[in-house]
Amino acid sequence: MESIIGLCKRRGFIFASSEIYGGYNGFFDYGPLGVELRNNIKNIWWRDMVQRRDDIVGLDSSIIMHPDIWKASGHVDGFSDPMVDCKESKLRYRADQLFIYPVILDDTSAGYIAVVEGTDLNTRIKQAKKLRDSLGNKQAKLDESQLDSEGTEITELDEAQRAVTLGPDAKDIGTLTEPREFKLMFETKVGPLADQSAVAYLRPETAQGIFANYKNIVDTGRVKIPFGIAQIGKAFRNEITPRNFIFRSREFEQMEIEYFISPDADWKTLHREWLDTCINWLESIGIPRDQVSEDVHAEDKLAFYSQATTDLMFEFPHGKQELWGIACRSDYDLGQHQKHSGKSMEIFDEAQKKKYIPHVIEPSLGVDRTLLAVLTTAYDEDEIPNDKGDVEKRTVLRFSPKIAPYKAAIFPLVKNKPELVEIAEKLYRKLQKRWNVFYDASGAIGRRYRRQDEIGTPYGITIDFDTLEKDGTVTLRDRDTTEQTRLSEKALIQFLEEQIDA
Amino acid sequence: MESIIGLCKRRGFIFASSEIYGGYNGFFDYGPLGVELRNNIKNIWWRDMVQRRDDIVGLDSSIIMHPDIWKASGHVDGFSDPMVDCKESKLRYRADQLFIYPVILDDTSAGYIAVVEGTDLNTRIKQAKKLRDSLGNKQAKLDESQLDSEGTEITELDEAQRAVTLGPDAKDIGTLTEPREFKLMFETKVGPLADQSAVAYLRPETAQGIFANYKNIVDTGRVKIPFGIAQIGKAFRNEITPRNFIFRSREFEQMEIEYFISPDADWKTLHREWLDTCINWLESIGIPRDQVSEDVHAEDKLAFYSQATTDLMFEFPHGKQELWGIACRSDYDLGQHQKHSGKSMEIFDEAQKKKYIPHVIEPSLGVDRTLLAVLTTAYDEDEIPNDKGDVEKRTVLRFSPKIAPYKAAIFPLVKNKPELVEIAEKLYRKLQKRWNVFYDASGAIGRRYRRQDEIGTPYGITIDFDTLEKDGTVTLRDRDTTEQTRLSEKALIQFLEEQIDA
Repeated sequence: MESIIGLCKRRGFIFASSEIYGGYNGFFDYGPLGVELRNNIKNIWWRDMVQRRDDIVGLDSSIIMHPDIWKASGHVDGFSDPMVDCKESKLRYRADQLFIYPVILDDTSAGYIAVVEGTDLNTRIKQAKKLRDSLGNKQAKLDESQLDSEGTEITELDEAQRAVTLGPDAKDIGTLTEPREFKLMFETKVGPLADQSAVAYLRPETAQGIFANYKNIVDTGRVKIPFGIAQIGKAFRNEITPRNFIFRSREFEQMEIEYFISPDADWKTLHREWLDTCINWLESIGIPRDQVSEDVHAEDKLAFYSQATTDLMFEFPHGKQELWGIACRSDYDLGQHQKHSGKSMEIFDEAQKKKYIPHVIEPSLGVDRTLLAVLTTAYDEDEIPNDKGDVEKRTVLRFSPKIAPYKAAIFPLVKNKPELVEIAEKLYRKLQKRWNVFYDASGAIGRRYRRQDEIGTPYGITIDFDTLEKDGTVTLRDRDTTEQTRLSEKALIQFLEEQIDA
Repeated sequence: MESIIGLCKRRGFIFASSEIYGGYNGFFDYGPLGVELRNNIKNIWWRDMVQRRDDIVGLDSSIIMHPDIWKASGHVDGFSDPMVDCKESKLRYRADQLFIYPVILDDTSAGYIAVVEGTDLNTRIKQAKKLRDSLGNKQAKLDESQLDSEGTEITELDEAQRAVTLGPDAKDIGTLTEPREFKLMFETKVGPLADQSAVAYLRPETAQGIFANYKNIVDTGRVKIPFGIAQIGKAFRNEITPRNFIFRSREFEQMEIEYFISPDADWKTLHREWLDTCINWLESIGIPRDQVSEDVHAEDKLAFYSQATTDLMFEFPHGKQELWGIACRSDYDLGQHQKHSGKSMEIFDEAQKKKYIPHVIEPSLGVDRTLLAVLTTAYDEDEIPNDKGDVEKRTVLRFSPKIAPYKAAIFPLVKNKPELVEIAEKLYRKLQKRWNVFYDASGAIGRRYRRQDEIGTPYGITIDFDTLEKDGTVTLRDRDTTEQTRLSEKALIQFLEEQIDA
């Protein structure tokens, strides 16, 4: 992960947000190369899921919507994490990340220490000694064996036990509150009045914007069951502990589809088809299917309205984690909006000759996670011969040509030969009309190749003396194999078309 | 405007946000056709301003940034509108939209009425009578001539005068407060703590994200003066009175460039060049240059750091208003960030062999305003012959092929002739690989054409019996002229390429 973060910063893919002000936890900015990679991922998803399909239409709903939408969806009441406050340090901890260990002094139960998940044994022993000190019992014998376990979740504590618990950043015992729900939606106030009626939320998911517009789309479009509505857009969650680079941030972007089906449809088969569609799509942008696994949620862990959820898991640098969730959500969301808005969400099914609220399959993917998965797959270090024939280490991003920020770099072999430069610039201008390409005239050609390898440009195109003196062909150098082939301009453009636009 | 709003709703371009919950003032959702139009505008702007230029790189910074950025930029202290509260009705008014009129009773000055800008004379007379009643002087003679003027801004009132002023929605006099500054930035709180240190803002412009990342881009890219950083993204302003459809909304999207130049550069010429670039770009997406005028801001109205600002004005349905602002902002913003962050914003200019904080030219354009300008230009009603040869009214959106949601619609002449349908579907699948195209097999061909006219599809492609029996050519029907020509498939594709991708 460190190598990826380093490269992302060094070559302008991803910066910490507001870096000149010391950064801002949970927010990231995409630099010149990052924004191209990001746009390519979004545009190809849109092309494949919306424009190249006949059964899905697009939508772009606002980030701030009527607050009643979040009441209907259950987010106002239910979208929260249990948190524990420390009255002494004023710090706040996620309850599910706070673990307690009993402290035994002179073979007698003395109290507990609470530590954040992952705290090592030495620190736990130190904490226990701090507890001993705060009890005014500096000479007591500490039973360290009790501290060498997995600990217990803090939710297990009762009031009397909390009274003798030492918090992670406290000096005195009894400073931790019981777990309280902490809302994950960002709140703001809309309109000139600043009272409670003005409270609104930044959407924590794009999905509800789809449900809220479902009726408008059914009424104005020519959709018929089964059909989907797709949306790409920002979403916000006030995560307590944003972490793992862009994997869990407070501002992120989603690519979501709500695919509406008949309540009588064979949802298991359709769910399986969506899983395959998603795996195929990941493969098409360069994430091999053998790096994607399926995590089927246990039935007793599903929400009451949900029939099934399967997550596509990817081996990120920090571990195997969810990349794409594909959920069968029944008619729950539309039913909730029908109830809260008083507007009918029924659709007339011409084929079945009946009216119903459709059920829905929801493939939900994060742009940032996809980008991190792409970076993880693409990042490589290998050894290739340099200009002098010596073996040299290189860093290479093996992006699929479809999503690479630059599709090709055009090089005149030397920059002080005007005829070479002229041909190179002409070719550059021509290719630039169709693709995002780069022009670089300075430095040894090997170094220029390597600079492009590091940012994932799949093809180097060199104009050399053979171009000038012989047949007009150019050298195409492949980033991954470093193999070079000579091609006519026509063959070059056809080759690029096949690799990039397919 | 009403026709445009109606068409946008009817055909799925733009919906009021959260419509099933009664709408949400100042927010809009883009439906299946609107999102395609919007994406086309954004993608072409990006292609032309970033990818096809060698001197501009892209950026995508977060919407929520470190709050110190907005202190440095001056937004925390200065970005506000003066507002007047009514203590009785609890309503709030923009001070610059509230006008007062003196009320003379029995030839004696009695007090004032305050009304919202644009209130008609009759309503003003009614208000004055209400004031008379509230003074307990029902028989007094009202001098109506005083009410028949342009009124005076409410800011002119002193405390004594306010005490005898009747507010627009009040029953008693003296309920209006003096104007107070109302902040236009949406506030939220970030992180687990909910105290003052957690306050953050939704960006009211994308520009500051560019300034905040300038140093990172200079340090990691290979930019050299002059160069620009471009960004497309959402911004938010808690407008008191959002209005004129998508022209002034609370959530909107900007396309901004900060173009960095030497302090010694001839900024007047560069400013002129940018104005021309912007006008040319508008023309390239179908906004004729004769509908764009320039509004040069008077020197004494400019901010102290600004050298010049010219707005490109467009004749919207609600009047001539700003579409694209092109400002010369000196080194003010970078200087402020250098001061507040303590990080040097100087760049070394290789050509001039010196270091300086660059000056900046800022072309700032709204996606939503561009879309409204495009809709305004494209909307037309004319008369064309129908299938029976009778003249029929039609509504047509004359979008440029570059930005039209669908580039072409493919029709088999009749749907019960499998050979026709097969050729049509094959052509559809082929074109769909390259462009967003539509397939429609049902209904009279004239009606199918008209449905496409209304959503601005520039070309209808019909597969008819001649295709089948003769030479394989298809009929290409032009939306604007309704002229039909026969083309081979190869010629068709070449024609579409030239019209769409140029």
